[in-house]
Amino acid sequence: MPKFMDVHDGFIGVTKSQLAEAHQHDLDIEAEEGVHFENAWLDPESGKVFCLSTGPSKEAVMRIHERAGHPTEQVYELSVEV
Amino acid sequence: MPKFMDVHDGFIGVTKSQLAEAHQHDLDIEAEEGVHFENAWLDPESGKVFCLSTGPSKEAVMRIHERAGHPTEQVYELSVEV
Repeated sequence: MPKFMDVHDGFIGVTKSQLAEAHQHDLDIEAEEGVHFENAWLDPESGKVFCLSTGPSKEAVMRIHERAGHPTEQVYELSVEV
Repeated sequence: MPKFMDVHDGFIGVTKSQLAEAHQHDLDIEAEEGVHFENAWLDPESGKVFCLSTGPSKEAVMRIHERAGHPTEQVYELSVEV
């Protein structure tokens, strides 16, 4: 199953509970697209969020994030890992 | 121990063995700064590399990457994880 990293901007000052709540919206619907989010990490100073997932395609990951209310165009297929 | 994500651009078309060789230069010296790289993922289409690490500071991660020959300013402290 392909692996993806996606990046979100603008989460400056967001707390752990706020991130968990936002990410729960992804988790609630991820199975509908065959996506599974493994991790979500936040740097609240820069506002960057990184999500690691598996799924059938980049577009599937984008659709889940869009429907969950935090769309991003920055989704990268991680076809190489060392 | 703080966790970090760093991002590199420009690795378009790089192969797994080339990434492994480049990353080995990080691994060879990481202990000198108390850094440990856990994963390095590449999207060869966009040329983005994401490295997940632990270490004492963002600057320590930057110094290892700079000495290894692939400096980046894009290092983010992942103080929140869900």
